[in-house]
Amino acid sequence: MKYYDVVIVGGGPSGVTAALSAKNSYPKKNIVLIRKDAKPMIPCGIPYTLFTLNTVDENILSDSPLIENKIEIINSEAIDRKDHILILSNGEEIKYEKLVLATGSKAVLPQIEGNQKDGVFLVRKRKKYLDNLRKAVHSSAKIVILGGGYIGVEVADELIKVGKNVTIVEMLPELLPTMDSEFSEKVKESLISRGGNVVTGKSILKILGDSSVSGVELSDGSVINCDMVIISVGYKPNLELVKKFGLHYLEGRGVIVDDYLRTSEKDIFAIGDCAVKYDFFTGDLTNIMLASTGMAEGRLVGSNLYSIKVVRQYQGVLGTFSTKIGNTAFAVSGLTEKKAKEKGMDYTVGIAKSFDRHPGKIPDASEVYVKLIFSTYSHTLLGAQIYGGNSVGELINMVSVMIQNRMTDTDINTMQIGTHPLLTPSPVVYPIITATINAIVKWFK
Amino acid sequence: MKYYDVVIVGGGPSGVTAALSAKNSYPKKNIVLIRKDAKPMIPCGIPYTLFTLNTVDENILSDSPLIENKIEIINSEAIDRKDHILILSNGEEIKYEKLVLATGSKAVLPQIEGNQKDGVFLVRKRKKYLDNLRKAVHSSAKIVILGGGYIGVEVADELIKVGKNVTIVEMLPELLPTMDSEFSEKVKESLISRGGNVVTGKSILKILGDSSVSGVELSDGSVINCDMVIISVGYKPNLELVKKFGLHYLEGRGVIVDDYLRTSEKDIFAIGDCAVKYDFFTGDLTNIMLASTGMAEGRLVGSNLYSIKVVRQYQGVLGTFSTKIGNTAFAVSGLTEKKAKEKGMDYTVGIAKSFDRHPGKIPDASEVYVKLIFSTYSHTLLGAQIYGGNSVGELINMVSVMIQNRMTDTDINTMQIGTHPLLTPSPVVYPIITATINAIVKWFK
Repeated sequence: MKYYDVVIVGGGPSGVTAALSAKNSYPKKNIVLIRKDAKPMIPCGIPYTLFTLNTVDENILSDSPLIENKIEIINSEAIDRKDHILILSNGEEIKYEKLVLATGSKAVLPQIEGNQKDGVFLVRKRKKYLDNLRKAVHSSAKIVILGGGYIGVEVADELIKVGKNVTIVEMLPELLPTMDSEFSEKVKESLISRGGNVVTGKSILKILGDSSVSGVELSDGSVINCDMVIISVGYKPNLELVKKFGLHYLEGRGVIVDDYLRTSEKDIFAIGDCAVKYDFFTGDLTNIMLASTGMAEGRLVGSNLYSIKVVRQYQGVLGTFSTKIGNTAFAVSGLTEKKAKEKGMDYTVGIAKSFDRHPGKIPDASEVYVKLIFSTYSHTLLGAQIYGGNSVGELINMVSVMIQNRMTDTDINTMQIGTHPLLTPSPVVYPIITATINAIVKWFK
Repeated sequence: MKYYDVVIVGGGPSGVTAALSAKNSYPKKNIVLIRKDAKPMIPCGIPYTLFTLNTVDENILSDSPLIENKIEIINSEAIDRKDHILILSNGEEIKYEKLVLATGSKAVLPQIEGNQKDGVFLVRKRKKYLDNLRKAVHSSAKIVILGGGYIGVEVADELIKVGKNVTIVEMLPELLPTMDSEFSEKVKESLISRGGNVVTGKSILKILGDSSVSGVELSDGSVINCDMVIISVGYKPNLELVKKFGLHYLEGRGVIVDDYLRTSEKDIFAIGDCAVKYDFFTGDLTNIMLASTGMAEGRLVGSNLYSIKVVRQYQGVLGTFSTKIGNTAFAVSGLTEKKAKEKGMDYTVGIAKSFDRHPGKIPDASEVYVKLIFSTYSHTLLGAQIYGGNSVGELINMVSVMIQNRMTDTDINTMQIGTHPLLTPSPVVYPIITATINAIVKWFK
């Protein structure tokens, strides 16, 4: 029987990060990473395997950091255990001292009549499945996407770029329901202006066709003809192994873990999509699944396997996310106005608009729009939403750092930033600061 | 005699920001901004008036925020005062309650033989002067730039884009002496690869020619022929008014102010380049002049004219700066390795390199290189230097927020950020975090 000090189950970004962090922190331990797929995907790159990347293979998560750090890899599936012995689907048994579960999540297939027909796809994460999805996309003309969340709109954006006739169907009244209306509207405009179709407030009742898809019937009885349906209505944690192990879990939510990602058995850790998540502001359960969150957990677990070396500074999931639709980048961190209401927060909004270069005549200048949510009494920053040019991807990370440091309006107002004509907005109208001042002015009045 | 509650002297970004902030905080006060130039320039945009912008006029700082906020503008020069009465060069006398000096800085003309010849220019901030500079540049073929600091290399970059034969001469051994060597080298490579010439470790002894420039003689006796010389060796605070006013000042450094930018007379404030600056880490005098710093001061002063409403959170100048040379953005915030040594800091370096998109196959991916400086014992982040694509402009602001919040390696290691294939590096190799881990690993060993 093989023995390893540390066994990681799951080859996605969270698992890889945990393995690397473990090696950094405990260089003498021998570490193995066990994964179902020999060619794991970069999860957030998956929509871009349809067009922007030349092949699905370009989106394979590289093994070289694992190899360079002498972390072993076993391509097999963990299926059960006996005490500290893990049983693999290839019959192997592996004894471990510490075990990290990073089993991830899988795409939800909704109960819709006809969901088994040829031409119906989910946005799964396995390479072979995605090879087929890419082929099917390129040989289809009319495609319906069910689900207007981030993955749905990213897929729609790619298909528009390939020149397909695309219709996105979202049950809720707006696309990107996790952002505020002005952002949802902007995404919708971008898709429509480039020839996409958007249907909101309706669901799909039935997928039509004989053996393969010929159309969908919506909840209002109308029919959209198409030769392919891509379903993207969410993901749920992979809990099969956890259930067999007898660990505490919440159905549809994940393995229960403490602040240091330890499960009900202290030698077993769980990170990423398969572990429960708590909200940064209220400590309530949340269902945000982001690679970047999983990786923050992976870093923490890797360092703390044998003792708590790294004290966790930020509890709860903030939910920092960015995407790009057409030429516009969209991003959110922390609370939206919608969510602040839902959580019963007393909040004040600050808004600003400017250009992301200065003067605005600089050739590649884009408009940038910032909406901040502050606590009315505590004056702490609770959330931000931004749209604009590509630098929005790092601008939201700056805001994410501010929220995690519980910065107030005054902190932001007296803060120093750098600006440059070719790279950032003008310091006179730097939008994170002017949106803060917009909120402050409301308090003065 | 006219009376205003608040008088701002100086129409640059610091003065404008102070005026707007005063109006936001004290909407009933009547406020006037007095400025020498009816068409003030955006200071950091000045190099780009040579080529990237179509005219110098495109770089005029807009009056519309002042007009929208009903702030009066007087185009004249303040030349003296009697108690609370300001005397203008147009003969007007203006009574004030609170006075804010934002008189800025001026380009230094070094004592070099021949510095008065036709074809010798400084990088001044006045529109008329810049109109002439632009004309001279476009009608010259060979241009020598004296000074390899930020302005010098930005001007060189513009002139290379226009297709001029450019030589930059820097007395110190490297360009951009305020960054570490690997960054200076990268800038030098970029200029040379596009046909620029770089001479370091030499000064200019003499500017040659009859009435107009025909060349320069260097300290090693060699001669470079040219028909234009642009001198950019630094700026010094405008202190004429301060001296007449009898306020405390330090020659070459600025008006002495307290943490709330109050001078030795408590009804007179001074901000921006004309006020002394203290280092963020040691409290020592520093000579960093940045629009973004001046504006942080402007916001603070505007709010605090009549009472301290906004308590200053961050003392001292951090010095956050970004620029772009060729296709590469460069940025620095806080201490470099060079400066850490100079200040006697015990420091540890963390380094990381990755792509700013993921996978690296995404079409517009650029390499991004991050160097962090940590305090070896306190583990607080002291500084960062970055080069990479355009998003470096906001990435350095994220780091600036981290430094101002005195974040440690552990804070950064357990922090949550957002990533997206089309906008940011991969979360597995997010360079701010991996550079932090690089430093942590050194401590573990």
